[in-house]
Order: sequence, then C-alpha cells, then structure tokens
Amino acid sequence: MTYDRTTVREILEKAKAEGRTALTAPEGKRICDAYGIATPGEGLAASADEAAALAAEIGFPVVLKIVSPDILHKTEAGGVLVGVASAEEARAGYERIVAAARAHDPDAAIDGVQVQRMVGGGREVIVGAVTDPTFGKVVAFGLGGVLVEVVRDVTFRLAPLSGDEARGMLDDIKAAEVLRGVRGADPVDREALADMIRRVGDLVGDFPEIAEVDLNPVFADADGATAADVRILLAQGPVQEPERIPRERILASMNRIFKPRSIAVIGASAESGKIGNSVMRNLINGGYRGHIYPINPKATEILGLPAYRSVRDVPGEIDVAIFAIPAAAVPAALEEVGAKGVAGAVMIPSGFAETGNVEGQQKIVEIARRHGVRMLGPNIYGYYYTPENLCATFCTPYDVKGGVALTSQSGGIGMAILGFSRTTKMGVSAIVGVGNKADVDEDDLLTFFGQDDNTRLIAMHMEDLKDGRGFVEAAREVVKRKPVIVLKAGRTAMGARAAGSHTGALAGDDRVYDDILRQAGVVRAPGLNEMLEYARALPLLPTPKGENVVIITGAGGSGVLLSDACVDNGLTLMDIPPDLDEAFRAHIPPFGAAGNPIDITGGEPPSTYEKTIRLGMSDPRIHALILGYWHTIVTPPMVFAELAARVVAECRAQGHDKPVVASLAGDTEVEAACEYLFDHGIVAYPYTTEKPVAVLGAKYRWARASGALNG
Amino acid sequence: MTYDRTTVREILEKAKAEGRTALTAPEGKRICDAYGIATPGEGLAASADEAAALAAEIGFPVVLKIVSPDILHKTEAGGVLVGVASAEEARAGYERIVAAARAHDPDAAIDGVQVQRMVGGGREVIVGAVTDPTFGKVVAFGLGGVLVEVVRDVTFRLAPLSGDEARGMLDDIKAAEVLRGVRGADPVDREALADMIRRVGDLVGDFPEIAEVDLNPVFADADGATAADVRILLAQGPVQEPERIPRERILASMNRIFKPRSIAVIGASAESGKIGNSVMRNLINGGYRGHIYPINPKATEILGLPAYRSVRDVPGEIDVAIFAIPAAAVPAALEEVGAKGVAGAVMIPSGFAETGNVEGQQKIVEIARRHGVRMLGPNIYGYYYTPENLCATFCTPYDVKGGVALTSQSGGIGMAILGFSRTTKMGVSAIVGVGNKADVDEDDLLTFFGQDDNTRLIAMHMEDLKDGRGFVEAAREVVKRKPVIVLKAGRTAMGARAAGSHTGALAGDDRVYDDILRQAGVVRAPGLNEMLEYARALPLLPTPKGENVVIITGAGGSGVLLSDACVDNGLTLMDIPPDLDEAFRAHIPPFGAAGNPIDITGGEPPSTYEKTIRLGMSDPRIHALILGYWHTIVTPPMVFAELAARVVAECRAQGHDKPVVASLAGDTEVEAACEYLFDHGIVAYPYTTEKPVAVLGAKYRWARASGALNG
Repeated sequence: MTYDRTTVREILEKAKAEGRTALTAPEGKRICDAYGIATPGEGLAASADEAAALAAEIGFPVVLKIVSPDILHKTEAGGVLVGVASAEEARAGYERIVAAARAHDPDAAIDGVQVQRMVGGGREVIVGAVTDPTFGKVVAFGLGGVLVEVVRDVTFRLAPLSGDEARGMLDDIKAAEVLRGVRGADPVDREALADMIRRVGDLVGDFPEIAEVDLNPVFADADGATAADVRILLAQGPVQEPERIPRERILASMNRIFKPRSIAVIGASAESGKIGNSVMRNLINGGYRGHIYPINPKATEILGLPAYRSVRDVPGEIDVAIFAIPAAAVPAALEEVGAKGVAGAVMIPSGFAETGNVEGQQKIVEIARRHGVRMLGPNIYGYYYTPENLCATFCTPYDVKGGVALTSQSGGIGMAILGFSRTTKMGVSAIVGVGNKADVDEDDLLTFFGQDDNTRLIAMHMEDLKDGRGFVEAAREVVKRKPVIVLKAGRTAMGARAAGSHTGALAGDDRVYDDILRQAGVVRAPGLNEMLEYARALPLLPTPKGENVVIITGAGGSGVLLSDACVDNGLTLMDIPPDLDEAFRAHIPPFGAAGNPIDITGGEPPSTYEKTIRLGMSDPRIHALILGYWHTIVTPPMVFAELAARVVAECRAQGHDKPVVASLAGDTEVEAACEYLFDHGIVAYPYTTEKPVAVLGAKYRWARASGALNG
Repeated sequence: MTYDRTTVREILEKAKAEGRTALTAPEGKRICDAYGIATPGEGLAASADEAAALAAEIGFPVVLKIVSPDILHKTEAGGVLVGVASAEEARAGYERIVAAARAHDPDAAIDGVQVQRMVGGGREVIVGAVTDPTFGKVVAFGLGGVLVEVVRDVTFRLAPLSGDEARGMLDDIKAAEVLRGVRGADPVDREALADMIRRVGDLVGDFPEIAEVDLNPVFADADGATAADVRILLAQGPVQEPERIPRERILASMNRIFKPRSIAVIGASAESGKIGNSVMRNLINGGYRGHIYPINPKATEILGLPAYRSVRDVPGEIDVAIFAIPAAAVPAALEEVGAKGVAGAVMIPSGFAETGNVEGQQKIVEIARRHGVRMLGPNIYGYYYTPENLCATFCTPYDVKGGVALTSQSGGIGMAILGFSRTTKMGVSAIVGVGNKADVDEDDLLTFFGQDDNTRLIAMHMEDLKDGRGFVEAAREVVKRKPVIVLKAGRTAMGARAAGSHTGALAGDDRVYDDILRQAGVVRAPGLNEMLEYARALPLLPTPKGENVVIITGAGGSGVLLSDACVDNGLTLMDIPPDLDEAFRAHIPPFGAAGNPIDITGGEPPSTYEKTIRLGMSDPRIHALILGYWHTIVTPPMVFAELAARVVAECRAQGHDKPVVASLAGDTEVEAACEYLFDHGIVAYPYTTEKPVAVLGAKYRWARASGALNG
C-alpha cells in the first residue's frame, strides 16, 4: 500500500504547533485520504449559503456537522443534523447548529460546518486504534454506531497487522455472522473492511504521535466500507519504546542463572531463622552440586563451607549471587557482584519500590545494568530449578521433578504454588518469583523456558507486563512447542481510565490484554486454582489431533453436565457416524443412549466401561475422551480406575493416543480412584463435572494456537 | 387497563377457521389497537394507485411491506421498502415489492401492500412474548432491530406481570444505560415502554392460544413507544395447564414421608448384596426409631424383624413404603400400598421411562394418583432425612446432621453429593433422589423444606422442571427465609429449537430459565462443584446487612485476585471513609496500603492480622470481610487460623456479626488451617482466591433476593 505520509506529517505538525491534541474533522478526512481510507464526499461551509451550495453539489441527503477544535462530542453540543434533504434545509440547518454550538460553549472557536454526503445502510462498524500502556499501538474493530460502548462487541490486535490478522478480526466479534449477512441481507465487503483496518494500523504505526483513531460509524455493505465520522487524537508527550535485550544475550544470562556452576550467598548465616541461613540450608539440603560460597564478613565457615568476606575474595567464577542482606546494604554488595562478573543477582530483600523506595530500586537497576548483571526481584522468595536440584529460596525445598515451570509476581501466590504442588505431587522444573520485576521479567523467563528441554509447560501469574510486545513476541515462538498458561491479575484495575474516544473507552478494561494474549496463543486461566490445575494436568494430556470429543458416561446426569461444560469450554461434541454408533450400541444395554454422550447406563459391570473406552480410544475419528463414572456396587471406584488406566495404557501402547479426562461421581472412594487415574495419565476429578472439561478445553486452546490442530 | 377482547377473539377465530397459525400485519395491528399498543399510522393498499393515495394521506416518508399469509420473513422476500418519500415512489414501490414477493414464492397469496408511516429515531427495542415449554407465557424485552438475534441483549419474565416487574426489565438488559440516554440523547419514556410490556403480557395471558408475539422494532423515545412491526403466531394445538396440588395436601403427605412413624420395605431381603437388604440395613443401622415392616412373601423374619407377605398383613398404619422389587412387580404391590393408605411410595426400581417403558410409568402414576399416594421416583437411590435418622436408600448411611437439604434428578449426582458431604463433613438434613419425577418433584420438596425447621438451605440438581410456574411460586416464598441453590443441567440442550419469531429465537437457549430462576430469587450454581460448595458454606455465613465488602490481606498479590473475584461475583468493594482508613493505617506498616484491599503487607506478626480483623469486624459500616492470608514464618497457618477464629468469635459474641471468608496462600499446612477455620464459622479455602469470593457472592445474591438487604 502506498501512503501520502507527507500530508499526514504536515497536518500533525500544524496541530502540534497550535498546541492541539485533537484534529478537526476536515483534518481527519485529509489523513484518511492520504491513507486510502474511504470517507463520504464532503466539504467545509463557512456560511449558510455555502452550506446550501455545497450540499447541492455533493448530492442529497447530507449531514451537517459543526467544525470546532473546542467541541469534541458534536452530538452532545447539538452540532449534528442528519437527513438534510434540500438546499433550503441545508441553509436553515447551518444556522441552527451554529447557534446550538454557541449555546453549548460560547467560547468555542467555530471554523464552520462540515457538509457531508449522508451514508447509511449496510452495517455500522467501528474501526479504531489506541495507544495501550502495555502493548503500544493497538487496532480495534467491532460493531459500531451509537451503541458501541454499550454493546462492546469489539476485538483488538497489535498494530501494524497482516491481511490475515485483519480478516481474523472480522470473525472474532460476537456479531461476526451479521457481517456475513443475516435474514436476507447481503454480506459486507470483507476485503474492504480488512483493508481499512490495516490502513489504520499502518497509520498509527507510521505516526506514533497519533494516540487514538476513531472511525465510527463505518458503513460497510456489499460494495465497500466508508468511514462516516473520523476522530483523531494526538499524544501529549513524547512516545517511549521499551528497551529490548537480544535473545542470545538473554539466554546466555538465563542459562548461567538456572544452571549455575557456582552460587554465592550474600548474607549467608549460621543462625537459624535468618533468611541467609534458610537459603544456605535449602541449597545444601536440596542437593545442589555446584560450588556454594557463603559470603559473610564476620564468619569463616557456615554450615561446613568456607565463608568469604566478599564475592571479590571468592577464588573461582560465580554464576549467581543470592542476596540475603538488608536493602540498604544491597548497592555496595551489588557493585562487587558486578565487578566479579556474576551473571545473575537473586534479589530477595524487600524495601524497594514496593515500600515506596523507587529511587533505591532505580539505583540497583542502574548498577546491575552497568555491570551486565541480570537481576531477579527485588522482593522475592527466590527460585527453584529442579533439574539442577536448585532451591535458591528461603522457603522449604521442593523436589518433585517434572516439566512444569511456574512464575509469580507475588510472594503469596508463590507460596500457594508451592503448597498446591506439594499436595498434588505436581512435577515441577522451576518455580520463580519475579517480585518487583526491576529487571528480569516474564519475557526473559519465557525465552529461557521456551527452549529449556526440562520444561514442557509454563504457567505465569502476572499483574502487569513491562513490555507487552516483547512478551507477545516471545510467547508466539514458545507456544508452537509448549503451552503457556497466564493468570493475569488486576483484570478490572484499568476500568477507570479516562477515555477520549469510543475506541479508548472500549479499550478501558481488560479486553486488550485478553485479545492480545489470546492472539499470542497464550491460554489465560480465569483464576489461581485454574492456573494451578491447568499446569498440573496439561502435561499429562497428549495433544489432540482433531476436534471430535466423545463423552462416555455411566451416569446420564453427569453426561448432561459434561455436555454443558463442553459448550462452556469451546469443545465440539462429535457427531457420531452411523457405523460407530452401531459399534457403541453393541456394548451397551438397549435402553442406553448411543449418540454423544454415550450413556452406558448406571448398573453396568466393568466390562461395559472397558469395551466402550477401548472403542473410544481405538477409533481414530475420535480425538479426545471424557469419561463420566458413577459409583455402583457392580463397578466400584478403584475397579473403574484400574480398568480405565489399563485400557488407556494398552491403547496408547498400540499407538492410539489421545487425551482422556474423567469426572468421578461417588462416595469418598472416588478420591483415591482419581489419584490413581492421575498417576496413570488420565486427568480425573471427584465431585465436579466442570474441572476435567475445563482442563481439556485449555489443552485444546493451546493445541489450536500451537498449530497442532488445523482450524 | 381496559382491552377490547372481543375484537381479538374475532381475529383469532377467523385465523383459526382459516387454518392459519400466523396473523397478517393488519390483523396484528388491529390486535395492538385492541390492547392499546401504539403502532404507526397505516393502511392496506390493493393497488399501486391506492398505495400512492394512502401514503399521501398518512404522510411521508412511508414504509411499504408486502402482506401475505405465506410470507413470514418479509425482508428476505424483498417485500419491504423503506424511506418512500413521494406518491410517485410509493406507486413504483408497490409494483416492485409485489414482483419481488412473487419471484420469492410464486404460490404465495398476496393480500396487498401495507403502507405505514415510517417511524425511527429514538431507540430500537423489542417487546415480545413466547410460550415456554416449562414456564408457559413469558414476556421478553431487549435491544431490538435487525441485530436483535446477534446482540441477544434481552430479558424474560413470567406473564402477566406487574408494573414494577415491567420497569425492572428495562434495567435488566446490558444496554440499560442506553434507555436512560447516552452521549446527549434523551432518555426514553420508561413508563410507555413498561406499559407496552404489560399489555403484551396481558394479551398472551388472556389468549393462551397466542404462542408468540414479536414487536420489533419498537421505537422508543422521550415521547413514547411505537411498535413499528408486529408479528403474532398462534399455537397449533390446545394449550395444557399442569395440575397443581394445594399446599396443605403437599405438606400433609411430605410430613408423613419425611417423618414417618412406620416404614414398609417391599422386597426386603436377608440376602447381602440385594437392594432390599441394603435398604433394611441402612434403616436399622442408620438408627431409625419408627416401625420397620419387611415385606417378603417368602420370609417370616428379616434382620430380626417379623416379615409380612403383603402390606395388607401389617397390623398398624404405614407412612412410607420403600419399593425394592423389579419394575414388573410394582403395579400389583402399589395397588396394595394404595389400599393400605400409605402416604409415600419410594420407588427405587428402574425399568420405567428411563428405559423407554413410558407406559409402565404412566400406569404406576395412575395407580398412585387413584389412591392418593405420593410417589418418589421411580429410578432413584432413595432418600435421607437425618433429623429422623432416616436412611431410606440402598447407598451407605450418612449421619452428619445439619441444615442442608439436597436433591438430585440423577443418581450419579446423588452419589457425588454423598461423597462430597462425607469428605467435607457437611451437615445435612436431607438428600433426596427424584429420578424420573413421575410424581413428587422439586415443587413438592421445596414446599416441604421451605417450612422445615431442620433445613436452613436447599440445593437442587435438576435437568428440567415439570411445572416451572409451580416451582417459581414455591421458590418465591421459600427464599424469603432460606437460600435455594439450583444446578440446572442441560443448559444447552434447547439450543436447536426451531424459532418462528425473533423472540422465539432469543428464548431458544437457557435464558428463560436463567432470568426466571433469578427472578424467583434462586441462586443458580454454574456447576456441580459450586452447588456443593455453596450448600456447604452458605449456612456458615451470617446474612450480610449491607453491600460494603472489605478485603484484608497479607499478600498484595492475593488482594488483586480477590478484587477481581469481587467484580466477577457482583460484590461492592467498600469505599473506605477517611476515619476508617486512618484507623486501619494505625495498625499496618507505613508502606502498607489502606484503601480497599487493605494490604497489611507480607512479613507482619499475628497481632497485625488480629487488630485489622477486629477493626473490620467491629465497625458497623463494614458488612462482610474477605481475608487473604500469606504463609510466613512470622505468622504460620495455624496461628493465623486460631487468631482469626478467636477474633471473629469474640466480635460475634459482642454482637458484631457479619460473613467472613478467607483465601489461604501457602504450603500444605494451609489445608489444615482452612479446615479449622471452616469448623469455626469462617469459610476458608487453600490455593484459590476465587472460591471464597464466589461463596460470599452467592450469599449476597440470596440476601438481595430474600429482601434481607435493601436494594
């Protein structure tokens, strides 16, 4: 696409020179012209007679709109008149809206009245762009018109964007079917709309000082799309880009931090109850095999290891320095750590930005940057990396090895991760506190865990992102290989942001995060417990090869609830083909229901469960199984668990691999049965029909985003 | 309101006589006129010239619409022309749409073209009515226009309805603010809209044969509301009303069933493994103190009790007969039970409607009705009523007494209720299986439990309601005194219903259930686990006296997640007044955050938790507390649990009573701490910030519905 950037630059400079942050409608139209965004025929009238002449030239009906740099919300000021059908009406209308505008704001400078061909018909949509504090330039598309802020049917993408991404936005709103034509209406020109979205994305990409663009309404029909109203707002200050560290450098540091050959503990202590003592004990008792150098000017030996006055006195190289000293002592010690060439500073101390000491935090960031030291924290519990038996934390050790890496911005959430992991025996590769995130953040950790063969899934609790684009970039790469689960807290904190435009108002809550994380392929967990359950369960589930989900249940009641949960979680209940239906029917009582759910009915013996599960596992047209179990005397819980585990294992050994989840309804013995199933590769929960399906849904969300599933 | 019922009757009879189920537009308008529903000026033109003359008379612009009993979707048939601005255009338009209609359906009978004053401006809303299979006549109100089925912003109420209910509907849609006027637009005439909703409700109430009414769009502005398009559909067959049993008779039976002085077990057996044996054992071992009469023609004694050949041989009166015999033997035995004057038949046997044996089920219903026996089931596990030590079931006994009554339509869900109750030690008054619901249903049980002093909360799993209005009536009474939790399964099963109108399409999913259960004051649980958790936790929470919720947290991270959960659950975080803020600040570190959440920060000793919780409990402006705990060495989990329980108990003893819930983040010791807290009247969960808040939200939903809270 070719754009007339010179004209846009000229208009923006003029507005800036005049100290304006809002462009006038004619300026907006000229920018649209320069970027190939269609607007209705129009002109500016400086008198009633000019309005009449212009209207006659453009063609009736026309719309009249006040043009004033001081009036942003024209309708509220009585500055808009629609359906003006004759020259006479145009003349009268001019007088009327100028009078209304003066009544609204006697001091408003009035440039005249815009006379615009009245467009309408087709669908009213909104195309816009905002500058998000986390993600920068973001385009919006949704249902438009006066109801836009009520209906809030809108979707966001990072700008600039590809044609596929723009077309994807058309499908991503709830009203997508409207654009395809409903009740006899023609479908809209999708290419024209996608094209307009891209042009808006390019515009804000090319001119970062454009803070917000609002094309609302845009009238879209079978023949094209026309922006009937244009509002463009400029940023007030200069626009800053976050710094980026190249991937190679991130990995070089992270590899030394997670796989250190040597660790110094600054503030190591022999005194029980001190953080510097807990850290030492955890390193030693956790089984870390590299060198441990306790640093303490007042000791010669701590827990049997020679102590040093300073890292400078340590003979060998140091990969990681763990800080267990008060905030005030950190800067000096960090200078020494930097001089020593340490790769990572694990900054446990609190007393920085979280207590208002922003300056102190900036100071240690500056020291770390100067020396090329990557810093974790401050204000953290430390980190675990089980492949290296590394418990670099003051909490209790954790040693169940596995493929799940978890990070948390909050210490409390970190403790919940630890407790949940221990009670469910979750296999973990890493648990990392990021705390104040003064330096190392989720992007860095994602970059490391993404390429870490010990990690099969990454789960992150976060309250914000320092660099949303950096995160999206890292996530897009990682999700091709492994799931990234995100618990984004503070969903509602941004609600109060003042909005200068419709698009701005729409972007005011959590939607931008939600849309863009989804685009990045991240699986967002709705709450803490879900993040933990997804992390525990997803690695147990093979990646599904298609969308056909089948429910096999001994309890009809569970079947109904499991079906509800499938709909809630975006899963597709397979339309069972006749031959498969026949095959299932052969195993179940005549009054049982084949179809889907397959209701094998309540009083059945183990063999019925066994035959139907085996059939479900071995037919390649079925891509995932949901089992509903009902506790009976005929098939007790552990009998079910053992047979289900055995059949699934046998089928998997024969190459029939697919995810299996189970909901167990019964007396308390189902709890042990669920544990057994979990240990044998079947994700199972008692007393809930929702959780197993939510976990399967999360696996599917990832599988779709990763490209492992077509569609 | 006075209505011209004669005219409506006349129109309906004519349509019925002609075998039509759809009224024409002029018929619809006449019905609107008869019921005082405003429509635009209009007339029927039988020729192009008539159309031109009529249009000139009504005033331009006009809309032309084809009138044909065979064309329902006029737009799709090319049968609508809007904005017709002159007599000439009206003439041409007539020809055009008649031609289009003929092209669409050459066989369609065409009555002419409706010429209608073109209305517009204001807001497009929909007012309608449908006949719901569960609830009967139901009115709908929502955003209207062509997008109505996409936006789906609509709410339903039982018809007929009061003025308050109709006005409530205006506030119940997502776009409610639009009606109050946004961006300078005038608010709509609420009274006119509410009035129109009521008139539609009265219309379908007066004429049950009207199946669906669609006024869409209705244009509402500051001056009134006008229905621009009217569609009325008639029912095809006769309309049936469900039978109702008077409350006194329900209670008379239910009291004998739940508090029986004597029980007969039909099919009692001495042979272990038989259902008739399990039932006998459970009755005896459960500690039931009334007479137990085993009925078995082949035995003289079973488990030490004299056995009888038939209930006829039992000397005394029998309140309940539990059936543990095959389906085929039921009718004869039930005749005897009826002749004996038994109040309740507990029909455990399966083999009825659930296996396709609908006739067999109808037969036993007929027998039971004839004798005035109320029947539970068939196809159930039985029932428990702990105040009478009654385990009338073949499952294992349950004896933890308490105030929760649970019912389930499915046996599997019943078993999950039992397992969950046992593992959480939930205090239960009753667990009841309703199975096929051939006779006793949720209405009956609600009526009994509502007035049962042993029951403080009722939780019901259901897949359908036999008589939605009966249930709503019972629920409205009960929720004034105790919470009613409903897990309605099969939310998505109705999605496929074919729709003859917009309103019908909107009512096609779960919305009618959802709106009307909410109206009835029922707290709907989103899933099985939530139903169980609400049942367990709500009786522990005192009823809040106002909407001011305060979060006190040791973990800032939990505070953010708890705030998110408050928004998700419709809770209001209190705006802390300055003096209270000051009072909290006195107890927390200077860098802690007062406000709400009150972040006492991580490393605080027990005294900080204690002082802030005591302040939160004792200030009467605070109505509910959410505690966030972070596991530290300074305040370990059990220390926190004990202090929180003690402080809350002390404050409650002083008359400062309010609900308290807690989220505990920490290592596995928090699990025992949560159990301790639960035992001491604080609803607490580990590893989740959502669950405690969801429970509090459920308590608030009930408190608002019960009238205990203003607003």
